[in-house]
Amino acid sequence: MHRFFVDDVPADEVILGGDQSRQIATVLRLDPGDRIVVIAGGSEHEVELTAVDAGRVSGRVVERRAVRTEPPFGLTLAIPLLKADRSEEIIEAASQLGVSRFVPFVSSRSVVKELSGAKLERWRRIAQESAETARRGVIPGIEPAVDWAALADRLTGTVLVCWEEAREPHLASLAHAEDCSLVIGPEGGLAPDEVAIVTARGARTVSLGPRNLRSETAAIAAVSIVVSGMDRQPTSR
Amino acid sequence: MHRFFVDDVPADEVILGGDQSRQIATVLRLDPGDRIVVIAGGSEHEVELTAVDAGRVSGRVVERRAVRTEPPFGLTLAIPLLKADRSEEIIEAASQLGVSRFVPFVSSRSVVKELSGAKLERWRRIAQESAETARRGVIPGIEPAVDWAALADRLTGTVLVCWEEAREPHLASLAHAEDCSLVIGPEGGLAPDEVAIVTARGARTVSLGPRNLRSETAAIAAVSIVVSGMDRQPTSR
Repeated sequence: MHRFFVDDVPADEVILGGDQSRQIATVLRLDPGDRIVVIAGGSEHEVELTAVDAGRVSGRVVERRAVRTEPPFGLTLAIPLLKADRSEEIIEAASQLGVSRFVPFVSSRSVVKELSGAKLERWRRIAQESAETARRGVIPGIEPAVDWAALADRLTGTVLVCWEEAREPHLASLAHAEDCSLVIGPEGGLAPDEVAIVTARGARTVSLGPRNLRSETAAIAAVSIVVSGMDRQPTSR
Repeated sequence: MHRFFVDDVPADEVILGGDQSRQIATVLRLDPGDRIVVIAGGSEHEVELTAVDAGRVSGRVVERRAVRTEPPFGLTLAIPLLKADRSEEIIEAASQLGVSRFVPFVSSRSVVKELSGAKLERWRRIAQESAETARRGVIPGIEPAVDWAALADRLTGTVLVCWEEAREPHLASLAHAEDCSLVIGPEGGLAPDEVAIVTARGARTVSLGPRNLRSETAAIAAVSIVVSGMDRQPTSR
């Protein structure tokens, strides 16, 4: 069944417009009587369509249930702005894997220094589509880009910096029964004085193993490792 | 220092030709006296160049050392042929992360059914470049594609099938102190009767968590989880 995120938890009736009604009417070609799933506030609402038009689709809620696909803890991913479509590759994969929030940043060795409004919007669409694909209950948020000096203020929970110069501990060896923020370096790596700024604020440096990983591989690997730890916690939803 | 894989372990003198001499002379513009690293048979050989020409580069070995970046166990990744460049994304990331061998396959729900010789060659170049980037000691091999019925014969060690219909065990909960093969399904998933063929041969089905992952995300996540387990074994090199 096709899934659509909406802003507000629906009462008995659901009205969709814009891209969503257009997709239902002209791309998916659904009819009254067909069902879709509408997601809001961590709940899924199974909806039977009552009227379908490209400009407006209506339906009524026939069943509600909690979404059971969210990791039990929050995971923030701080990602550098990368060349080509490498950042989009991270957002697509990490949104499927369960990241709650992205904080893009620029550091001293970053090659790409600016995130345009158009690109930010595009990234938000990718995050939403990936969350729908993954059958998640929330869309990961993507914040405007910040400079390295401002990054620490935006991170929550245990802050782990994946740094190629850290030989230990391995990221996988740390406990994951808590909210966490992961920081991944840009193409040229993080400078030691940059790392010192965040470790002075309580962040820990961690290793992803002895191989040299590209930024996008490191980001997807780190999220995979942390989420697999979260999923296996006994307190897991 | 730039890294080059060669077929044979060099004695005192190293001769490079073809793409490698061309890259050294015309792209990197190295001169006699500059150093490169030549990798063969799991060892690194630091080489001081003695003559540089686009058609032929020579140098002498000034230091040898073991490569310490290989995972302590073999990891085979069985991947479906995917649309667009999704397979290449897997090969690039998984080669950095430490996979030893790829076995591409076609199953009943595969959209892409054939792997051309040109594409196989391209994948092998990507695997080599990614292994160089990661500073690995070996280039992961990529075998010609096989049908699902022939796949089990090509897999070694513990065979784990990442299957979206498996609710447990989680891949991360299995011990990893041994050689392992991971199998990832195509866009449309693996059919139950296909899974039955390999489980009858001793394979286990495993979960990557409750979210629905695209094939390429599942492949990179699964490799990340297994390699992080291997890297942390006490027998680790």
